[in-house]
Amino acid sequence: MDVDLDFLHELIMPALTKIVMIIMDGLGGLSMEPGGKTELETAFTPNLDALAGLSSLGMSLPAGPGITVESGPGHLAIFGYDPIQYRIGRGVLEAVGLDLDLGPNDVAARGNYCTVDAAGVVTDRRAGRIANDISRELSKLLTTKIEDVEFQVETVKEHRLAIVLRGPGLGSAVTSSDPQKNGLSPLEIHALQPDAEKTARLLNQFVERSGQVLAEYPLKGPANMVLVRGIDHYPDLPMFPQIFGLRAAAIAVYPTYRGIARLVGMQVLPVDGGSFADEFSALEKYWNDFDFFYLHIKNTDLAGEDGDFNRKVGIIEEVDGLIPRLLALAPDVIIFSGDHSTPAALKGHSWHPVPTLMYGKYVRADGIAEFGERACGRGSLGILQAKHIMPIALANALRLAKYSS
Amino acid sequence: MDVDLDFLHELIMPALTKIVMIIMDGLGGLSMEPGGKTELETAFTPNLDALAGLSSLGMSLPAGPGITVESGPGHLAIFGYDPIQYRIGRGVLEAVGLDLDLGPNDVAARGNYCTVDAAGVVTDRRAGRIANDISRELSKLLTTKIEDVEFQVETVKEHRLAIVLRGPGLGSAVTSSDPQKNGLSPLEIHALQPDAEKTARLLNQFVERSGQVLAEYPLKGPANMVLVRGIDHYPDLPMFPQIFGLRAAAIAVYPTYRGIARLVGMQVLPVDGGSFADEFSALEKYWNDFDFFYLHIKNTDLAGEDGDFNRKVGIIEEVDGLIPRLLALAPDVIIFSGDHSTPAALKGHSWHPVPTLMYGKYVRADGIAEFGERACGRGSLGILQAKHIMPIALANALRLAKYSS
Repeated sequence: MDVDLDFLHELIMPALTKIVMIIMDGLGGLSMEPGGKTELETAFTPNLDALAGLSSLGMSLPAGPGITVESGPGHLAIFGYDPIQYRIGRGVLEAVGLDLDLGPNDVAARGNYCTVDAAGVVTDRRAGRIANDISRELSKLLTTKIEDVEFQVETVKEHRLAIVLRGPGLGSAVTSSDPQKNGLSPLEIHALQPDAEKTARLLNQFVERSGQVLAEYPLKGPANMVLVRGIDHYPDLPMFPQIFGLRAAAIAVYPTYRGIARLVGMQVLPVDGGSFADEFSALEKYWNDFDFFYLHIKNTDLAGEDGDFNRKVGIIEEVDGLIPRLLALAPDVIIFSGDHSTPAALKGHSWHPVPTLMYGKYVRADGIAEFGERACGRGSLGILQAKHIMPIALANALRLAKYSS
Repeated sequence: MDVDLDFLHELIMPALTKIVMIIMDGLGGLSMEPGGKTELETAFTPNLDALAGLSSLGMSLPAGPGITVESGPGHLAIFGYDPIQYRIGRGVLEAVGLDLDLGPNDVAARGNYCTVDAAGVVTDRRAGRIANDISRELSKLLTTKIEDVEFQVETVKEHRLAIVLRGPGLGSAVTSSDPQKNGLSPLEIHALQPDAEKTARLLNQFVERSGQVLAEYPLKGPANMVLVRGIDHYPDLPMFPQIFGLRAAAIAVYPTYRGIARLVGMQVLPVDGGSFADEFSALEKYWNDFDFFYLHIKNTDLAGEDGDFNRKVGIIEEVDGLIPRLLALAPDVIIFSGDHSTPAALKGHSWHPVPTLMYGKYVRADGIAEFGERACGRGSLGILQAKHIMPIALANALRLAKYSS
């Protein structure tokens, strides 16, 4: 009984309704001690609580029970795509986030500046999170051409790199060089399919050359090697605006999320400034021009990754304070959720279901005036697959025709 | 968005955490009168209730809504296998449970001694549950060779038999001779595929010969015919320890469950004695040698099958008393559930979801300090497929890497 994108597309009807999807990255959390409250439960959120009272609540699973997701699959799921069927390599996400030109035959990789010791063992996978300006300077040195393939290296932020390979005959089915843990040596890259042998060979040469270049660099800083992973071509995804019949806009400050939105065909709006309030200002400014808005708040995830429970609570409270501006626009449907959980207690993404709120004139409201993990766990949306959020939102926006077989 | 075994396997990370899965066979129940309590709700279970308060609760469906399962599919599901995709014939379960040698070309069947009347109608499918010693004596008489195929007949317990066919050209796609009800005649066995015609023909001859041998047996007891069903080859299952990266041990007293555990590659531990406490002693004894323990309690199912509500309550209470010994070992993750429901009110297996508890440091505890059907029905695991219990347990044991596509 899988409701796939083709099936949904056949039911799409035009309408004048507007849908807003607010995604707080890593929203779901955990308590720091047994029996305690999560970050969201701790936060004072009078506006979200009042909205919850008029909404259906539930807990969403990004990619299935027990599965922890990266941002890519987490976002594909909330945009309505099956995150296991549709895949995007991390390299593509980084490259698209930076607005790098990525043609259909090009290959993109995610890079990390790292530190290796004399024996070649990785001692810091993030090279001490080196400063942006040094990272950018190094990236220029690493940009090169090997045989007939150009290697464009660009700093995303600190140690994070996007690497684009442009040239003929580049398959993307190759392994990663990243051992994923400190204390291990970088791995040799191998082709997983015959058409990717050239990619593997040249990436190994690129990594070797990078080590030599960085060793010679005058700073001799902590960054003395590059790890590459998430190697992929530009994905062949169905476009969100076409599938769902929505003029769709994305409001996001961080490059990766602007990139994901662009990959699925959303128009990425300029945000004047970097605060949450600035994102809400963009929503107001472009309100008349689109049917669907995706608004992304990154900082909850960063606070969770840092294990900073109180900072995450504060960010949630700050966003709660902006909810009246959202309501003043009178959207027909509001989705408030996250792309995954990032509990401060785990200092990383986790598998825990994500609190999800669906507001609209025609939702069957649960009458639970509280937005939190346990409250959403009692909600009428139940435990739902994140990819089912879009169909429910479309239905509530009266944008889905009756299925008559 | 099906999370299959290959997908899970790719995410497996090594860890030092330990998972214990306690399965009370047929745990789920029903009340004996409208509005009453189930066996589990009636039982005084202070230890399980306290553990429930620190756990996520839910109700698991072994093979889907409305589907009642035998032990085989019920166990495959809790071990993480889709019980509809992966199948094991009952004959194989019985043969493996007895540790019989079963090669890749051999075929195994489950047999029942039964009683037929002069007209050939089955009057008792279990031949009055004949005594074990008589059953074993009869089984020796039925062991034979027909054409080039050996028929090894072994008593499992009372009327229950394992029959292994060894010889060339034996397909296993054949129908059963068991009419499944008293008052009907045994059925002729038919091949469902051309390569199973020899198997069908020889099994029919075996059944006919068995009737003749039993009629001549001096006791002329109630066992005067054999019914055969569950005919199958040894299954080609992915191995549990390899898929999940777990050194896995099984603690079970009953042969069938030791057999199922062995079929999926678990190491079956010796249990010194047959009591529940003896099973917990085995858990303590081998604690340091494994990452995963499956501990099986049979008697709840037997009491349910007998329609003995109070006996089932007592068995649950006895196991509750052993929980402190489990907690003293400080497992990282505890799963407490059943392979299916066996309500005393139905005197048999049933389709009702099974109360399920998941304890661990990183579970989002529901704060429901009660372990019972209705309490679990309010839990945050919701109604979950039993095959999803393993991925959630692995996540909580920090044994699953992030999915990054």
